[in-house]
Amino acid sequence: MSRSTLHPPPAAGPVRLTAGARTALRPVGNAAILGGFWHRRRAVNADVCIPQGPALLEAAGNLHDLRLAAGGEPGEYRGDFPFMDSDVYKWLEAAAWELARADTPQLARDVERITGLVAAAQEPDGYLNTWFQVTRAGRRYEDLRWGHELYCAGHLIQAAVAHHRSTGKKELLEVAVRFADHIDATFGPGGPIDGFDGHPEVETALVELYRETGERRYLTLAGHFVDRHGHGVLGGEAYCQDRVPLRAQQNVEGHAVRQLYLLAAAADLAAETGDEELAASCERLWSAMVATKTHITGGLGAHHDEEDFGDAYELPTERAYCETCAAVASVHFSWRMALLTGRARYSDLIERTLFNGLLAGVALDGERWLYVNPLQVRDGHTDGGGDQSARRTRWFRCACCPPNVMRLMASLEHYVASTDDAGLQIHQYAAGRYGGEVRGAPTIVSAHTDFPWSGRIRLIIEESPQDRPWTLSLRIPQWSAGHTVTVAQRRIEAPAGGDGWLRLERTWSPGDEVVLELDMRPRLVGADARVDAVRGCVAIERGPLVHCLEGVDHPGGGLDDVVIDTTRPLSAVERPGLLGGLTVVTASGRRRTPAEAGWWPYRSVPRADGTGPDHNPHQEGELTLTAIPYYAWANREDGPMRVWIPAF
Amino acid sequence: MSRSTLHPPPAAGPVRLTAGARTALRPVGNAAILGGFWHRRRAVNADVCIPQGPALLEAAGNLHDLRLAAGGEPGEYRGDFPFMDSDVYKWLEAAAWELARADTPQLARDVERITGLVAAAQEPDGYLNTWFQVTRAGRRYEDLRWGHELYCAGHLIQAAVAHHRSTGKKELLEVAVRFADHIDATFGPGGPIDGFDGHPEVETALVELYRETGERRYLTLAGHFVDRHGHGVLGGEAYCQDRVPLRAQQNVEGHAVRQLYLLAAAADLAAETGDEELAASCERLWSAMVATKTHITGGLGAHHDEEDFGDAYELPTERAYCETCAAVASVHFSWRMALLTGRARYSDLIERTLFNGLLAGVALDGERWLYVNPLQVRDGHTDGGGDQSARRTRWFRCACCPPNVMRLMASLEHYVASTDDAGLQIHQYAAGRYGGEVRGAPTIVSAHTDFPWSGRIRLIIEESPQDRPWTLSLRIPQWSAGHTVTVAQRRIEAPAGGDGWLRLERTWSPGDEVVLELDMRPRLVGADARVDAVRGCVAIERGPLVHCLEGVDHPGGGLDDVVIDTTRPLSAVERPGLLGGLTVVTASGRRRTPAEAGWWPYRSVPRADGTGPDHNPHQEGELTLTAIPYYAWANREDGPMRVWIPAF
Repeated sequence: MSRSTLHPPPAAGPVRLTAGARTALRPVGNAAILGGFWHRRRAVNADVCIPQGPALLEAAGNLHDLRLAAGGEPGEYRGDFPFMDSDVYKWLEAAAWELARADTPQLARDVERITGLVAAAQEPDGYLNTWFQVTRAGRRYEDLRWGHELYCAGHLIQAAVAHHRSTGKKELLEVAVRFADHIDATFGPGGPIDGFDGHPEVETALVELYRETGERRYLTLAGHFVDRHGHGVLGGEAYCQDRVPLRAQQNVEGHAVRQLYLLAAAADLAAETGDEELAASCERLWSAMVATKTHITGGLGAHHDEEDFGDAYELPTERAYCETCAAVASVHFSWRMALLTGRARYSDLIERTLFNGLLAGVALDGERWLYVNPLQVRDGHTDGGGDQSARRTRWFRCACCPPNVMRLMASLEHYVASTDDAGLQIHQYAAGRYGGEVRGAPTIVSAHTDFPWSGRIRLIIEESPQDRPWTLSLRIPQWSAGHTVTVAQRRIEAPAGGDGWLRLERTWSPGDEVVLELDMRPRLVGADARVDAVRGCVAIERGPLVHCLEGVDHPGGGLDDVVIDTTRPLSAVERPGLLGGLTVVTASGRRRTPAEAGWWPYRSVPRADGTGPDHNPHQEGELTLTAIPYYAWANREDGPMRVWIPAF
Repeated sequence: MSRSTLHPPPAAGPVRLTAGARTALRPVGNAAILGGFWHRRRAVNADVCIPQGPALLEAAGNLHDLRLAAGGEPGEYRGDFPFMDSDVYKWLEAAAWELARADTPQLARDVERITGLVAAAQEPDGYLNTWFQVTRAGRRYEDLRWGHELYCAGHLIQAAVAHHRSTGKKELLEVAVRFADHIDATFGPGGPIDGFDGHPEVETALVELYRETGERRYLTLAGHFVDRHGHGVLGGEAYCQDRVPLRAQQNVEGHAVRQLYLLAAAADLAAETGDEELAASCERLWSAMVATKTHITGGLGAHHDEEDFGDAYELPTERAYCETCAAVASVHFSWRMALLTGRARYSDLIERTLFNGLLAGVALDGERWLYVNPLQVRDGHTDGGGDQSARRTRWFRCACCPPNVMRLMASLEHYVASTDDAGLQIHQYAAGRYGGEVRGAPTIVSAHTDFPWSGRIRLIIEESPQDRPWTLSLRIPQWSAGHTVTVAQRRIEAPAGGDGWLRLERTWSPGDEVVLELDMRPRLVGADARVDAVRGCVAIERGPLVHCLEGVDHPGGGLDDVVIDTTRPLSAVERPGLLGGLTVVTASGRRRTPAEAGWWPYRSVPRADGTGPDHNPHQEGELTLTAIPYYAWANREDGPMRVWIPAF
């Protein structure tokens, strides 16, 4: 990172709270990731993923469908889903956040052109959904369970807010406002339709539109939608978040992304209105979700069938669904909770999700994607590719995930830091520059680190009020068994509080330096005993990274018979030439010799049974296990993979 | 069982091989289950399930749809699937087998009436599918992947064969022959359509029609259909059994029921034509399926999504699909393999499937059904009921399973015994009377047993050639750790051969008695180490029965934290008053005290880790585990259940 790049970027990012919002923390006004791990991943997003968007959306038919709806092009509707438009909107949102950082002329032209297509496709009364306009004329809002009309509207609104916030331009915002007004007139209290969209998204978008325009009707409408869920208006299914009102719900359920977008909206509402019951419901549901329905990668969703959360502790490995979109939605929800409550654990989950469940969704070269993110691919797995396969794919028939990752990556710096009355908080250790107003004065902290390869994070006070103390708060990650802190090169005792924050209150001066060292020793991790799917297994972690074994690193027999020796030490090994440069963890293990089981795979076991660790004295097939970070899997070949490694 | 009931029943049953068939064994001409366990289960089938069929088919719209197609009734088509007719045909088949045993006037009238509806709905050219006739006129055979037209034809043909074989009546057979001739003209080699049905069933039905009518065209057409699979004609998907030709396939794949019906047809063809390549493929695929893709209950199918087999060793517990229809299909396939090869293991799997995976599909009172048969239901499982839930349901929207169980149960005696040139084989230990021609003379053996509650089976020679020796062969079940045999009250040494048969060659006389004692001690069973889903767990079995824990027997805390102590003995306890009378197995266990894990359910483990059996010296929460037979679960309340019990 060169010091000359340290300009404060524009204050464009999601979740720009209003002055009246009641939260513990507030997003920072300035944020820039300027080096290190995330800078490299974002460069791929900015240089490969986002620029390819228009051509991919053209090839998949989405832009054609907009022209079709506008009456400017002949042809048939293309694409199989009523939410084709939302892929365009999510790309626009990603491009808009990117434009806040660098006003690339080609990207600006693409955004302008596609904004024009969107505006042209809008009906005079504000309605816009090309699927219904072209193939279901006259049947608006007849199928709220599956129609996705308000879901698409939500993504349009989010894109418009991003575009306006980033560039000050109003073209897309005007389209969004027209649609929002139409929706308010149709679905608002007293309007002709009592209902909501089976796929939440418009709710949180309406809160953001309120934040951007100051028009309180949108906030009211968002609250109305959130509270209409759970009364059976859409048939009472958990899939549509309609089985039980959020305020009474005890655990997350149904379609994971739908649940998470709804929760993000509820957290937004709690922040903007001070609704304590809603805030308590969000906290309760986040805690239940994390304790019982979250994979170690932060992945969410246990069922392929209906993309459902599944039961508590039902966390399969091969069939982990962990939709990439659910990882995006989880970050959205958790960040709102972090601001609302000020507790560090929300950013613990964000860190885990970003480095694992989310980042695995995009190939290292930015060219291919995963929709589902399994924790195990077996030897001999047959897979035809496509949307819900365990194989990276260029684009999906249902292409919700790629532009969702793009928009999150393009706005990533806004999840790194926050301020409150006492000072500034660092949530994520991403090299860069973060600042806002602290105690009435502009305050900027820069972060310098090679995290997650190193656990050393150097923070420098760049600007600060110099006449009064304030608190620099550092999140001590849940995974770090210990840490050290030096301030101005003097080691100090600074334990983290029960809420996960290490607080350093000082009268700071520009140039002051804080160095945090986290415990980066690789570790073995076990699951709650009720997670039946991984009983007798351990996972390997280092820092925030979950690791996994890949077949390509273990030639000669696949992974179905690999066993780890948990009594032997782990080693971290830097591999600068591997997969863009990373640190692997090695462990001792062996290949189990398949039992002579005969034709039937189940057999009587002795009473003092054989279910304990198998201390085979021969150690036949001893081998070194090499665990790469999970985010990097399936970038060399399509083969077996496993996160959870049997201990016997 | 009273001796006076021992009349040889009519020789009506499925798989009546032709004289030219080349199999190791042949079905017996006479078979009657006359007491004991299966007699009681069949009484429910005959007295409750089958008589209720017409009213249920009326309520679900199937009979209405037939009248609609016949033009005799106004109204809209009812039901959501193109295979509504097959439910009617499967019921007719069940009723036909039942009529072979007891010519109940009401049942005979129902069969006659419904046969009339079917005949009236048939088109003049032989085509018959009410869904297409009513809702898709002119679009026959346009959607072979999903249209199920030949699938329904297959069930019609099977029903017609059963009806003709059981009663000698031709009405339904004539309908079936007209449809079969239409299909042959349309799809036969050189016909206008090159294709097959995405859901196999017509193939095995055509072989049976050949057996019933002697018309070789039907056998040829069946062979043509089987060999057209796997060449991409239907798009190349495993779901439709179109990814790879059966003759080259290495493991079962795709939709489980589709795969199994296709394999049953292949085995039928191998039997009737002597096609050794096809026979070898069937053996290879059966062995791969059993070794890698079969649940301990005999249940098949690991994915809810597409009702798919899943990968080798992917055998989840909560999401075990194990469709009841797949259990029926597995019995069909395995019985054909038992006859083809003469190996006892095929009947081992049949026994396991009948007593567990299949029988669980119908409630003890015959009033409710399971479509999927999970091996675990968690504490707090939320379930809306319906087709693919873990809750017993009165009838399904997709009601394939109930009449499938009915037809299997109604023909159960035909899977019990066989003959060959050397003598008679007893495959299943069902009290009754079984006989055929052995060495040119009528031979009958009666079986007297309370199996599976007792392991004692008394066999009495009722009729026999008295001037020449023949071999009585008894299957020694895979699960029996030892057995004793007495012949005429003298204990003899008689081990089973490598093929699973215990052979007793004698010159037998009427009244000769053989007593077989199997090892009925309850046992703990573990899985192949590659079955990750159940690592560190054991199952409890006794005889052919897999047992399970139910929440209702373990009040005060559910089953998610139950642990078995595998060092303590198991006990079998007769419970005549429980669930119609059964033997439970008790074991020692405890309730795990949930760890203080904090908000995140994964945590570092010591190197010499905590994954081994937890010999908690305090044994807090010690409790006696009571395991009922799996077939009887969910007959008291809808609560938690588990087959696999953690050992730590």
